[in-house]
Amino acid sequence: MNPKEILEKVNEAISRKAYPTQPEGLYEPIKYVLSLGGKRIRPVFMLLAYRLYKENIDYIMTAAIGLEMYHNFTLLHDDLMDKADIRRGKPTVHKKWDANTAILSGDSMMMMAAKMIHSVDSPNNWEATDLFCKTALEIGEGQQYDMNFEQRDDVLLDEYMEMIRLKTSVLLACAFKMGAIYGGANEKDSDLLYRFGEKIGLAFQLQDDYLDVYGNPLTFGKRIGGDILCNKKTFLLINALNLADAETKNRLERLLCATEIQPEEKIKAVTDIYNQLEIGALCRQKETSLFEEARQLLSEVSVCPEKRDELWQFVENLRNRNV
Amino acid sequence: MNPKEILEKVNEAISRKAYPTQPEGLYEPIKYVLSLGGKRIRPVFMLLAYRLYKENIDYIMTAAIGLEMYHNFTLLHDDLMDKADIRRGKPTVHKKWDANTAILSGDSMMMMAAKMIHSVDSPNNWEATDLFCKTALEIGEGQQYDMNFEQRDDVLLDEYMEMIRLKTSVLLACAFKMGAIYGGANEKDSDLLYRFGEKIGLAFQLQDDYLDVYGNPLTFGKRIGGDILCNKKTFLLINALNLADAETKNRLERLLCATEIQPEEKIKAVTDIYNQLEIGALCRQKETSLFEEARQLLSEVSVCPEKRDELWQFVENLRNRNV
Repeated sequence: MNPKEILEKVNEAISRKAYPTQPEGLYEPIKYVLSLGGKRIRPVFMLLAYRLYKENIDYIMTAAIGLEMYHNFTLLHDDLMDKADIRRGKPTVHKKWDANTAILSGDSMMMMAAKMIHSVDSPNNWEATDLFCKTALEIGEGQQYDMNFEQRDDVLLDEYMEMIRLKTSVLLACAFKMGAIYGGANEKDSDLLYRFGEKIGLAFQLQDDYLDVYGNPLTFGKRIGGDILCNKKTFLLINALNLADAETKNRLERLLCATEIQPEEKIKAVTDIYNQLEIGALCRQKETSLFEEARQLLSEVSVCPEKRDELWQFVENLRNRNV
Repeated sequence: MNPKEILEKVNEAISRKAYPTQPEGLYEPIKYVLSLGGKRIRPVFMLLAYRLYKENIDYIMTAAIGLEMYHNFTLLHDDLMDKADIRRGKPTVHKKWDANTAILSGDSMMMMAAKMIHSVDSPNNWEATDLFCKTALEIGEGQQYDMNFEQRDDVLLDEYMEMIRLKTSVLLACAFKMGAIYGGANEKDSDLLYRFGEKIGLAFQLQDDYLDVYGNPLTFGKRIGGDILCNKKTFLLINALNLADAETKNRLERLLCATEIQPEEKIKAVTDIYNQLEIGALCRQKETSLFEEARQLLSEVSVCPEKRDELWQFVENLRNRNV
């Protein structure tokens, strides 16, 4: 079974999932959110890690879908907190319904996710569920730091890297490690796969930061320059502020405060500064070295090379998809 | 150890609970909510049920505090959804901080609760955690029905009873049953204690409905007539609408729609109708019969009578406290 077939099985399991019919106002939004699609990389990662050790992925499919449910819960509540109107090209739950619906449906998604993960009949269930709970708490911390950073203009690079680790990487790490735990991997392998997931997650986030500025408008899926327009403290902006000489830094800071400027003009001016400082290349280098570190960690996992290669190939394909 | 000593141990464990120091914006509100006090009846119920079978309550204290954490999470998010400004005489989290803080801190409380309950090292941990997850989903359904009922004026008595069962009773039932499960009770006892908790929960809610109208303003803790002012579909109002003759029903419905009326005048007029229809006595009867059913269920639990009596005495004391 290749990753594409695994993805099909994941999508099939999501569409087959049964919900109570009542109260409709609670469960309709949950079905809606799950029906909007997405790359489903968390369940696929979990199942790929499991497949390094065991064959029958149906055995842990409920937990895999639970992780996707959890991820979608975070998007739902994050969109509400960020007042984002659109997700995957469709209205977000608080726009289509209202804020209370988004709060309560999200809460139920979170608990449903925990119940699904906890329901797997495995001797390693305790460890997997504990990892999930710990991860979910870290993701809450990541979201809090992300919101805090919006109010600050002195965010350090290390703080940023730690924020994205918490907000996005630990869930990928958790997906890999849960798959390994359910698969009966030894502790060394489970930890290697966790750290592998962390590196991959950081690399994907830096790729996202890069593509926000340098991506192909036809394939990126979001507006180019969106991060620039909302002054998001990305890897690019933090490094630009760190590396710029006094005059350039001053120019950049004035662009961040500018209120009269046209959006396209601001995007162009900030991008010019990034180009001048070669920030794009710096981001690419960091991304590449993270992928290299990930590959190194994967190579230490004690399973046959073909299986590792298959997993690596899948990650590489994801990496190259948008570029 | 008597219930009062158990409560002291619960409060001690809550005040001793350690939280990460960072990010402060996430964990300060959680500490704040837990510090506001409350009767802590859910952990005390869990520990009393456990004590029917085993002695050392420290063994499951983390789970008991987890249930209190979960309960406080529901209050936090419910207050946000209901736009309630005050809880236990203090500003609610969304007033003291903001809505996003209430959303995110609540989410973390929920996951912290699950992690705490899941952390108990017991052979019956799986069953207890599963019950908790199932209960939390039911409570979400109860909250949804409660919000739905605000928009409806045709709520049936059975619907109301089912709503309060889901919104408040199942958590008390869960507390008793979790204690029994951790204590190693047989299935019959666990189920009896669950049903016992359900009846107790319904009875307490009807008592609350009654006291909103007929309570002693000095001891009730909330404004007398609060439910009347917001047209809450309580046991009293639903029965009054059901039992009134055409003229009285018409008068009551006009009071519900009235916008020009003074609050005290509305409370008095609605209370007069309740008096005329003897709705207060009806509520008391139902409450009494629920307590009787609960007592009957408890008497079937196969532990020594002294232990059952101690538990019953605690419930009776709670019942008489506000009356």
